[in-house]
Amino acid sequence: MPGVSFRHEDGHPDVMRGEETQIAGALAAMGLSDGLFVLGGTHSKWVRVEAGAITAFSTYMTGEVFAALRGHTILGRLMPEGERGDGAGLRRGVLEGAALPSAGSLLARLFSVRTLGLFDELPGRELSDYLSGLLIGAELAEATRHGAGRFIAVKSQGLERQYDAAADILGLDCVPAPADCVVLGHLAIARAAGLVVDA
Amino acid sequence: MPGVSFRHEDGHPDVMRGEETQIAGALAAMGLSDGLFVLGGTHSKWVRVEAGAITAFSTYMTGEVFAALRGHTILGRLMPEGERGDGAGLRRGVLEGAALPSAGSLLARLFSVRTLGLFDELPGRELSDYLSGLLIGAELAEATRHGAGRFIAVKSQGLERQYDAAADILGLDCVPAPADCVVLGHLAIARAAGLVVDA
Repeated sequence: MPGVSFRHEDGHPDVMRGEETQIAGALAAMGLSDGLFVLGGTHSKWVRVEAGAITAFSTYMTGEVFAALRGHTILGRLMPEGERGDGAGLRRGVLEGAALPSAGSLLARLFSVRTLGLFDELPGRELSDYLSGLLIGAELAEATRHGAGRFIAVKSQGLERQYDAAADILGLDCVPAPADCVVLGHLAIARAAGLVVDA
Repeated sequence: MPGVSFRHEDGHPDVMRGEETQIAGALAAMGLSDGLFVLGGTHSKWVRVEAGAITAFSTYMTGEVFAALRGHTILGRLMPEGERGDGAGLRRGVLEGAALPSAGSLLARLFSVRTLGLFDELPGRELSDYLSGLLIGAELAEATRHGAGRFIAVKSQGLERQYDAAADILGLDCVPAPADCVVLGHLAIARAAGLVVDA
């Protein structure tokens, strides 16, 4: 598959390079021709399918933004290495991130990752998940804005679990796709092209 | 001056450490007791003053987020070293950043810094300013949301020029404070404390 490009309503171009194979696999395996799909990754793709065709998609840089903020700003400094949160930080972040009123408010709220640590209002081990939650909450709220609160998470880089957890916190319905969407996708495409004839 | 802390309406703490001296200086030098002030920096402080007292402030991590995204994500890769834009990228970024409908939409729009470069829709030399503009536009829209479209930029780290340029693009009124607000602030505080008696 050569990739897909798309122009958003506001004129901005967007691209995916291969992820469409997994969408084809998920559609075939799940017997669907419509739905909102997410492929988690450094750059997550949210893909709308209607009548069996991709009609829109959007790339969110959430994962890479998280890594850059955690690794290369002041925000990572209060995060202890190797300690993980118990879910409280993630929950708080997802709820707050989804409720942010504007793009600018995200740039301000990020500073809370520091101040909540400085003021001992969130344990250090929760700060990484809180930051992650802020970003993924903001992403989920925007990506599901026009939908029915239901989306399908395609297994990729383990991030489908993160989307499932965040969806649960926000009361959204995250449906897992089968694990082998890449293989299923190649098969579906080959079949559609007449390269595979079922016995 | 020992610093100021503040709790936002939503319960989040915020802190500044010394910038309040410059606010005192700007108020004294400009004969003001009210206004919205910005102190540009890695972490910019937007400060509301009413009846001579700081009544609210908010820290935006815009500058540090920009540096992390430019230096440590895929977005910096298409930006040629040492080449500067002619204003077109900044203008586009500021207008688009200020118009973003949500926090999540910022995480998606960031990918345009890459796609506009890949599709040759914005010259490489404009991409850094475009990214900067997206962030500062989002910040300005949020920080001036409750105001009369007018704010005072205190000279700091040269960033007051960036705020002035962005305000101009958005039709906001950016008033420069005198250059020596730190000194003026110390003097105003000493005078208020009775440590300086005017001849």
